[in-house]
Amino acid sequence: MSGFVSFVSAGAGDPELLTLKAVARLRAADVVLYDDLASGAILDHVRKEARLVSVGKRAGRPSAKQEHVSRLLVEYAATGATVVRLKSGDAGVFGRLEEEIEALRRAGVAYEIIPGITAACAAAAAAGIPLTRRHTARRLQLITGADVRGELPEDLNWAALTDPHSTTAVYMGKRTFPALAAKLIAHGLAPETPALLAESVGHADQRFVRTTVAKLAEQLAHEAVTATAVILFGALAGED
Amino acid sequence: MSGFVSFVSAGAGDPELLTLKAVARLRAADVVLYDDLASGAILDHVRKEARLVSVGKRAGRPSAKQEHVSRLLVEYAATGATVVRLKSGDAGVFGRLEEEIEALRRAGVAYEIIPGITAACAAAAAAGIPLTRRHTARRLQLITGADVRGELPEDLNWAALTDPHSTTAVYMGKRTFPALAAKLIAHGLAPETPALLAESVGHADQRFVRTTVAKLAEQLAHEAVTATAVILFGALAGED
Repeated sequence: MSGFVSFVSAGAGDPELLTLKAVARLRAADVVLYDDLASGAILDHVRKEARLVSVGKRAGRPSAKQEHVSRLLVEYAATGATVVRLKSGDAGVFGRLEEEIEALRRAGVAYEIIPGITAACAAAAAAGIPLTRRHTARRLQLITGADVRGELPEDLNWAALTDPHSTTAVYMGKRTFPALAAKLIAHGLAPETPALLAESVGHADQRFVRTTVAKLAEQLAHEAVTATAVILFGALAGED
Repeated sequence: MSGFVSFVSAGAGDPELLTLKAVARLRAADVVLYDDLASGAILDHVRKEARLVSVGKRAGRPSAKQEHVSRLLVEYAATGATVVRLKSGDAGVFGRLEEEIEALRRAGVAYEIIPGITAACAAAAAAGIPLTRRHTARRLQLITGADVRGELPEDLNWAALTDPHSTTAVYMGKRTFPALAAKLIAHGLAPETPALLAESVGHADQRFVRTTVAKLAEQLAHEAVTATAVILFGALAGED
């Protein structure tokens, strides 16, 4: 008996951003392990006979034990099951995919990765703006605002992040943005650099805040983190 | 009469990477303007009565007149049509979306953007690797290897691109990679940095070359550009 694991990217928010391939994998699955961020209507594609297993990771909360998720994947695959590991956004972008892949490799379990729409792309599209633009936004970079402890990562590349000709998307960065912004400005980023907070993209409570890096930092210093958000900054973030 | 334009991202390569929303927009369209890279089986979702208009942009060839595409969009919308502008990958990433949006705004035509899977995500998934990894690949950056003249863009951010803790995806960069690699190495990137050439991802002739930045540059100096490719480099590009 040798099962198979499909890492399926759920896209970011809107259930209609699932790909045809993701839907096909959900329909074929015997077992689906999902995070809180990849649930809701997306799970309607799963067969009634399939087993749904919540592994409960949620933004702003301590991460579920990663080792536990990896062990579950290996155990379900060992039963011969067709397993889907559903991840929000694109599984390969800040999804801790490598740790689950490593566990499968060690156990000799075959896998595939179905790519998806990452939050930066979903947020920009919902806001009606592109992520790159000739001359003024020539490089797009994605970083996370929270390391495994939930803190701003150390050793960020300031030359990269303060480049006025780039668009930066900060994932999981709402809580740490005041600290990030202070360092960006200290390293030379213009405080009035346009910033876009995109919250709950694709959901009923979707919200956009179009402001500047300095003002967003001030606002977020006084705002509880209750929703999933991505922050874009750079010249393009000022478009609407 | 006031039409509407949906910028629909076709995903990268595999027609099964279309989203449910993209399929719905294709089915509802009166007119579909498409590039060569977003065609084939993807167009099977378009109704027989709809008008298909090839605007013929192709990698490695001079770009079609951008002004012509923008004018067509405005003209079709002016007839009251539901227009889809189909773009490969994610429309917001190196798709020159801003120029078409600007033309619609000037003409007062309403539009939406349907995001999609960008080539970096599709290539990494097809290669079985993530794009980020804690500690070793903390930043993901996307650049284009070709400006409007088809040449390596000037003023690239070398501190960003030579950062050993990042993953870089180079779009439309196969032809200029020897020149890019030479500059990267001159600016301090280790020549043995892992590199992955991902060609025709999702198509029958999909090909991966796992090598190093220096060796890939040497190889590509002697290879004709015949297929769409994305090049990934950084520590993660060495995984398989």
